[in-house]
Amino acid sequence: MHVFTTVSELQGYLQAARFNNQSVGLVATMGALHRGHISLIEAALSENEVVVCSIFVNPTQFNNPEDLVKYPRSEQEDLALLRKAGCQVAFVPLVSEMYPTPSILQMDFGPIAQVMEGKSRPGHFNGVGVVVSKLLHMIMPDRAYFGQKDLQQVAIVEQLIRDLSFSAQLVVCPTLREESGLAMSSRNKRLSDEELKLAALIYQKLAEAKNQLLSGISIPQVIASIEAYFNQIPEFRLDYFEIVDRETLQRVEGLAEGQSVALCIAIYLGDVRLIDNLVID
Amino acid sequence: MHVFTTVSELQGYLQAARFNNQSVGLVATMGALHRGHISLIEAALSENEVVVCSIFVNPTQFNNPEDLVKYPRSEQEDLALLRKAGCQVAFVPLVSEMYPTPSILQMDFGPIAQVMEGKSRPGHFNGVGVVVSKLLHMIMPDRAYFGQKDLQQVAIVEQLIRDLSFSAQLVVCPTLREESGLAMSSRNKRLSDEELKLAALIYQKLAEAKNQLLSGISIPQVIASIEAYFNQIPEFRLDYFEIVDRETLQRVEGLAEGQSVALCIAIYLGDVRLIDNLVID
Repeated sequence: MHVFTTVSELQGYLQAARFNNQSVGLVATMGALHRGHISLIEAALSENEVVVCSIFVNPTQFNNPEDLVKYPRSEQEDLALLRKAGCQVAFVPLVSEMYPTPSILQMDFGPIAQVMEGKSRPGHFNGVGVVVSKLLHMIMPDRAYFGQKDLQQVAIVEQLIRDLSFSAQLVVCPTLREESGLAMSSRNKRLSDEELKLAALIYQKLAEAKNQLLSGISIPQVIASIEAYFNQIPEFRLDYFEIVDRETLQRVEGLAEGQSVALCIAIYLGDVRLIDNLVID
Repeated sequence: MHVFTTVSELQGYLQAARFNNQSVGLVATMGALHRGHISLIEAALSENEVVVCSIFVNPTQFNNPEDLVKYPRSEQEDLALLRKAGCQVAFVPLVSEMYPTPSILQMDFGPIAQVMEGKSRPGHFNGVGVVVSKLLHMIMPDRAYFGQKDLQQVAIVEQLIRDLSFSAQLVVCPTLREESGLAMSSRNKRLSDEELKLAALIYQKLAEAKNQLLSGISIPQVIASIEAYFNQIPEFRLDYFEIVDRETLQRVEGLAEGQSVALCIAIYLGDVRLIDNLVID
């Protein structure tokens, strides 16, 4: 596997690949890789000759400086996992390589960025928009792979690609889960054994809420029941639980024919913030 | 010359060019071509094997609907001029081709977009940023050519390319002028013979102001003298006259070693809004 730290080395390699008519897939990560990321690499390998995995903890998408400092980093393990998965290229730039000058431009994605993560983490999606644009420009992939776990990020990248006519195709891959049902996340590494057990409740309650919706229970009732449940467990602090249109991410009044709906949750367990979602198609 | 109206035809052609290792230059225009545009085409032809001239009156950069309606259009003459200049490709998309869905994403360029044109034309530079991003993504040029006449647009595109790590190189070409000194502009076609004579005063007074600055007259004095001059001619209505740093476009207190300074003017002559600038390096 080639490990590049500079854009010019990376582009030299990719130019040759493209000259040989090879397609390029991009998996953009912040490292601390787990099986969820590897499933994105595998999806990319199945559709492209060359897969680039970027590992970059992007400072501009962290609204909380403490979260940035505590974000888990494990570069050597990450590279070993990528090698084992058959990834051809790892791109591991320093902050100074990605931001030779600070980005002044701000991207405002409108209503889609004003809810849920956008509301709780001001500036987050501007940071995502800028760094994804930079990676797409540097790597020029045919396809870019993102996980459904970060559903709002998926919707933002969909809008970014559509609104600015990027040529890359977005591929959304399903959320991978632990045996307990807990969505895989780099932040899970920060949970104690006790907390890991509690964290499994997040998926269990999401799945229960999905079933309640499908059985005809009203949205206000489903929301009230989730809120009441987590409020009575002192280790949890619910940030939001929303039932929204899958694409616009705006709240819905009920299920409707032909509309995909997402149940989205963000919750603190101790000082670790976890998110998850389930979609009803 | 190839004339394409769809992105897919255009990209088919460019893919073949790139496969033959040909470099691509882009001249983005809103049509109503004059010798200023043709000088951009010539600059592009001197540095690239393939030159694409886009002709697209971009609705999202017009804050004034009347200005959009009255913007001169002359497609057949434009294509004839491009053919004569030796341009290889004209890209003439419909609005529906450039915006299959309306762009929701807003780009805020910060301080650089809050002055001069940005102040007088709210939303203008968001429209410029979005359409330039789209054209760069569709055409993937090695170099993109812009005229110094739209100096703030140049500064915005510089920042766009830097902040989002676009791979295209920006090439800035000098302003072309009529014999009278009037900066060439598509909007000049809307001026009467009488107005064309008056319009020559704009460059004359700019040049005079530049000489005054170089001879040590203070910035407030130079500004006051320009304002007083145009205020006493009833056909003119001065929008702004600013003396700013060439890159940040923020006002300067005086000339300083190593700093490029621009004298920028926007002025109505009847209902036609004209802009011009001179740079002191």
